[in-house]
Amino acid sequence: MYYAEPVAKLIGELSKLPGVGPKTAERLAFHLIAQSKEDVAKLTQALKDVKEKIHYCSVCFNITEQDPCRFCQDPSRDSSVICVVEQPKDIIAMEKTREYRGRYHVLLGSISPMDGVGPDDIRLRELLGRLEDDKVKEVIVATSPTIEGEATAMYVARLVKPLGVRVTRIAHGLPVGGSLEYVDEITLAKALEGRREL
Amino acid sequence: MYYAEPVAKLIGELSKLPGVGPKTAERLAFHLIAQSKEDVAKLTQALKDVKEKIHYCSVCFNITEQDPCRFCQDPSRDSSVICVVEQPKDIIAMEKTREYRGRYHVLLGSISPMDGVGPDDIRLRELLGRLEDDKVKEVIVATSPTIEGEATAMYVARLVKPLGVRVTRIAHGLPVGGSLEYVDEITLAKALEGRREL
Repeated sequence: MYYAEPVAKLIGELSKLPGVGPKTAERLAFHLIAQSKEDVAKLTQALKDVKEKIHYCSVCFNITEQDPCRFCQDPSRDSSVICVVEQPKDIIAMEKTREYRGRYHVLLGSISPMDGVGPDDIRLRELLGRLEDDKVKEVIVATSPTIEGEATAMYVARLVKPLGVRVTRIAHGLPVGGSLEYVDEITLAKALEGRREL
Repeated sequence: MYYAEPVAKLIGELSKLPGVGPKTAERLAFHLIAQSKEDVAKLTQALKDVKEKIHYCSVCFNITEQDPCRFCQDPSRDSSVICVVEQPKDIIAMEKTREYRGRYHVLLGSISPMDGVGPDDIRLRELLGRLEDDKVKEVIVATSPTIEGEATAMYVARLVKPLGVRVTRIAHGLPVGGSLEYVDEITLAKALEGRREL
């Protein structure tokens, strides 16, 4: 034990963060120790607030303060189209294109047998539930162009098509193997434009 | 404003951390949102504990729970030698060598005119105060082998030598331009062994 217990604990907690190894956790911890009490309090408050105020939307599973979220509540958005994404942050990527005015559905993951994530582990059943009332005419699958994202897209198509709903996939204008969140707006807008039947 | 306010605030706070840009902050925030309340509470508690329980030692400016710190309190350590380091984490690096049994003094920085850090901004005066009672026979300067670390070493030597105290510098076995914390134990032990008069 080289570190005092509170320091060791903080390093331990920080190294649980994605992309943060023990050395980075140490550097972050010492940075935080050198910060003023007020600055650290701001961070802890922000963490607390996020956990207290932010929930998943009961309709689309976007993260939101109010429920349903603003995309589900907005009467000016087209309820006949649902864009299916993997993560809440992918909605931001879609919104930045300014090309899409329909609804969203967040799967909160993608099918990945290697990681033990099956169709029941993502919000697919809830998507099907939203298609029951006949209002939805098209489901746009905007999962990432990765193996998992493609597999998820095929699975969504297989489930949704029998319900008589059109299923489209955003075009491969995006570099294959990448992640949706790093695509620039124009490429993503083009991909949306060139979407094809699944 | 694409993000709900608590999310945007958390991203803002996280991006203040060293080495964390806006994309990384976003990724960390979404990771934390997906975590259980309990896991995030552990992190906030660790942050709180560190700020409440960890202080600078009033003697050597190491970070510590008790004051003075365990290195300053330990009667088995040699009070005739003080090892001067830039940061508290550098003490850990020194301890790992298992070659050093004296006291420490943390400057909490290094002289860097480019960053507006002068001799009065680091704990130099406090070091001189510790040399007043004649017990200290040697000051080992173990600042990093960077421009700032070397400048600080020279400055310490200039201040301490007139007091009749021996001033040594750990040897350049360490790669120049590196940072003390990334040096392996053996190299650092060798550097300590080969220290020379300043």
